[in-house]
Amino acid sequence: MQGGNAMSRRRKFWGWGYEDEDLGADERKALAGVLADRFGVDSLSVTEPPTLAEVELRDPRVKPPSSLDHLCSDSKEERASHTYGKSFRDVVRAYRRDFSNPPDVVATPNDEEDVRRLLDWCSEAGLAAIPYGGGSSVVGGVEPPPADAFPGAVTIDLRNLNKVLEVDRASRAARIQGGALGPDLEAQLKPHGLTLRHFPQSFELSTLGGWIATRSGGQFATLYTHIDDFVEAVRVVTPAGLVKTRRLPGSGAGPQPERLFLGSEGSLGIITEAWMRLQDRPTFRANVAASFASFEDAVAACRAVSQSGLHPSNCRLLDPLEALYSGAGDGGQALLLVAFESADHELDAWIARAGELCRDHGGEVPDQVETRAGAEGAREGSAGAWRDAFIKMPYRRDAIAGMGVINETFETACTWEAFPRFHAAVTGAVRGALESIGGGSGWVSARFTHVYPDGPAPYYSVMAPGKPGQEIEQWQVIKEAASAAIIREGGTITHHHAVGRDHMPWYEQEKPALVDAALRAAKTALDPRGVMNPGVIVGLR
Amino acid sequence: MQGGNAMSRRRKFWGWGYEDEDLGADERKALAGVLADRFGVDSLSVTEPPTLAEVELRDPRVKPPSSLDHLCSDSKEERASHTYGKSFRDVVRAYRRDFSNPPDVVATPNDEEDVRRLLDWCSEAGLAAIPYGGGSSVVGGVEPPPADAFPGAVTIDLRNLNKVLEVDRASRAARIQGGALGPDLEAQLKPHGLTLRHFPQSFELSTLGGWIATRSGGQFATLYTHIDDFVEAVRVVTPAGLVKTRRLPGSGAGPQPERLFLGSEGSLGIITEAWMRLQDRPTFRANVAASFASFEDAVAACRAVSQSGLHPSNCRLLDPLEALYSGAGDGGQALLLVAFESADHELDAWIARAGELCRDHGGEVPDQVETRAGAEGAREGSAGAWRDAFIKMPYRRDAIAGMGVINETFETACTWEAFPRFHAAVTGAVRGALESIGGGSGWVSARFTHVYPDGPAPYYSVMAPGKPGQEIEQWQVIKEAASAAIIREGGTITHHHAVGRDHMPWYEQEKPALVDAALRAAKTALDPRGVMNPGVIVGLR
Repeated sequence: MQGGNAMSRRRKFWGWGYEDEDLGADERKALAGVLADRFGVDSLSVTEPPTLAEVELRDPRVKPPSSLDHLCSDSKEERASHTYGKSFRDVVRAYRRDFSNPPDVVATPNDEEDVRRLLDWCSEAGLAAIPYGGGSSVVGGVEPPPADAFPGAVTIDLRNLNKVLEVDRASRAARIQGGALGPDLEAQLKPHGLTLRHFPQSFELSTLGGWIATRSGGQFATLYTHIDDFVEAVRVVTPAGLVKTRRLPGSGAGPQPERLFLGSEGSLGIITEAWMRLQDRPTFRANVAASFASFEDAVAACRAVSQSGLHPSNCRLLDPLEALYSGAGDGGQALLLVAFESADHELDAWIARAGELCRDHGGEVPDQVETRAGAEGAREGSAGAWRDAFIKMPYRRDAIAGMGVINETFETACTWEAFPRFHAAVTGAVRGALESIGGGSGWVSARFTHVYPDGPAPYYSVMAPGKPGQEIEQWQVIKEAASAAIIREGGTITHHHAVGRDHMPWYEQEKPALVDAALRAAKTALDPRGVMNPGVIVGLR
Repeated sequence: MQGGNAMSRRRKFWGWGYEDEDLGADERKALAGVLADRFGVDSLSVTEPPTLAEVELRDPRVKPPSSLDHLCSDSKEERASHTYGKSFRDVVRAYRRDFSNPPDVVATPNDEEDVRRLLDWCSEAGLAAIPYGGGSSVVGGVEPPPADAFPGAVTIDLRNLNKVLEVDRASRAARIQGGALGPDLEAQLKPHGLTLRHFPQSFELSTLGGWIATRSGGQFATLYTHIDDFVEAVRVVTPAGLVKTRRLPGSGAGPQPERLFLGSEGSLGIITEAWMRLQDRPTFRANVAASFASFEDAVAACRAVSQSGLHPSNCRLLDPLEALYSGAGDGGQALLLVAFESADHELDAWIARAGELCRDHGGEVPDQVETRAGAEGAREGSAGAWRDAFIKMPYRRDAIAGMGVINETFETACTWEAFPRFHAAVTGAVRGALESIGGGSGWVSARFTHVYPDGPAPYYSVMAPGKPGQEIEQWQVIKEAASAAIIREGGTITHHHAVGRDHMPWYEQEKPALVDAALRAAKTALDPRGVMNPGVIVGLR
């Protein structure tokens, strides 16, 4: 068996990120003060984060065979830090010192052959095999199934498969291992002048394999919204053997094989490698921010831009509350941020037309739009600064979860035609749920993270004062109200947060029954013993 | 039983298109003269097309139950005209008056419920059910399986499901029946100012359901190359029941359900309806034609445009021979045609940059590029004229198949990095095959029909003098040489012609074995008796 976690920089075992970047006690106290003001209460109680010494784990139920022992650990730190993902509910359970269902073993394969042998062991012994990339799931995607469902659970952490193995400059593609974290792979691509430009909020601590398995939503607000479009070929180890697809820019030969694994969330196998389509590093940038007195007008402008064929890299709509809390507005105006980037050409014509479309729909647009080129354009500038702040936000979320505050985000997609009714129904359901739990001083705000010619992907944030000790039950009331409204109104239970275990009840309603039957049959072909991430995508029976 | 074919305009029963548009005897003779010149022979023998009176069909092996009788026909014309698709081999068999394996019954359902009842009958009786849209398959996709494999074959022709049922203007989408031919659906969309803009060569006589089932490649040379991207939701009748997916602009909820049916080629069920993403009708157009002394330079220019982020609607590369035979060159120059279209904005910046990229790679570009706007831009202009000629070409192909000439097109995709080696290997294999059949005076030419940032989709045309009576055997030699080279060199057996029965041997090599196992399992879940288009996508056992 291995000893403790050998990573050079220490990750928090109970929540998001690195220990050395987490909020200190003073910062948590200040944040609690700001939130108390917003809720109109005197103060919020601040729970201290758990320490490893406070946590108790049950004894491991299984031991690896001696041939795999060197890949495995049952140390307290490894098991505790692989017990949960990073959702609100996960962090609240951590604050409660509840680590009652940890994995029995955490394995860290060093190559594809190790992965194969680990899955062989799990299949033969009937143990749940939980693929683990960065552990950033916010939907219960990486926690073990209920303890009585399997005699043991083995979490397979891909952190040692973190290399860019090959770069094809002419085709702008690279072969990358599934366990590479965002910064790892970008650092290895940079010397080639290339970039994947996939920047989900979890970028720092999520992996290529995880992005592919969950159909991650990235940086681009239009066109290339999901990682899907950048996947040229995959290698997947399943319990039944290896799947390797061809590097093809396009094909019409049967159902696209990669699509079986895109969104499979570890239920079929482990993605060990992928050939990814890359971008040249942008050197031209242009952006414009339009403000709107009317949210409906802002939505109409956003629709016009999404249907224009301009394909902006950013097209983010913030409702007045989101604009206020992100420091970009006074709470009375909706904000539409449109940006273009290119490694090839000046963007004046693009940004000028986007600005016109905003004005045509009642937007206030500065006379001068911001464009940059060359070395100046190569810097990320304000977009990069915003992104840095954006990817630091999960540290704040962890802190807030320890203040008796209910904090949830959920996201979906619907057609433009349906949006007004959809939005009213979903926000109405959430407000009703907030009232019912005594959180009426809380709020729900909305933005569009991605937009399509046929509809937006709205992203909702909910924050409300809760009852300490009741946070999970109260969260559940809100989650159920929001999810039921989304499904009832024709949306999807997730646009880019994935299904995991948390979304399964609603995913089962969204997924046609015969598609479920087909997926279940496919899973049985690839995972005959049903050990791969059990209960995710294909329900337990 | 129904009587004969009730279509107002009479389709050829033995090949492509309408009787009143087919080449006359004089035109066939003139074409034979041109080809004889090119081959350097005195003359070509011209076989007369078959007449229905010359054709003999075996007796139908099955009769529909009386409850379905009104939907079914066993007339000679219906059965003969549904015996084949429109490939070279199909038409040669027709010239040979060989209609030895026709469907036993041709059914024309009037609604989804009729489709369901027909599939129930086929499932219960164990009859092969062959979905039939426009019948434009060039890969054996609509012919019955071998006569000894099933006790009977029922072709289900969707021609009566040809309506646009609903238009959602705000989301730019429409609900369209699977049997709608290209011109049908465009005519119904036009009053709404909308267009699908999917113009495969078969446009006039292929259907929406067929396009989706085969992942058809359309008008757009970049970005939206396949119909896949325009499918918002589908309704599919399978033997196990109805599948209906949600209208979602985007989603991350599990493997995308529509992707199971995109490329399924009728092996899982019949697509009765789809919600399709549409375009506004373009009013701005711009195009440029660049000529290159070197084919390699033209390829490099094409790659630069494909990686520029400009997303032209057309980006077609013709090698010198293709340029010559399309009347656009003198045989010494390769030609790159780049075009943009938009319903939203002027395209000057786009076309100027595309022209620059061509010049940067050694292309000769006219000083003035052609741009049009408004009413002028709304006309299809030269692109439309070219397209009209393009969609008339199959009539010529039918004629050529009756001249003892081997005529085949095949298409694939590969990475930019691989292309030079790939192209040499494929064209070398074809030239070798031509020599081996005594067709050395024939030729193989190439173009790119679609291009991607990571590689092109090359399209090859082969024409050679053959031995009358030996055309199919000679064609087979070429087809096998080309297909083997494509698979060996890492390409796909088809970029947009589909798999059908003809490509199955190579598709089975391209498809990973475990993906085949998963597809077979999924098929068994949806089509337990294995009656749907047997032998296509999932091989017969």
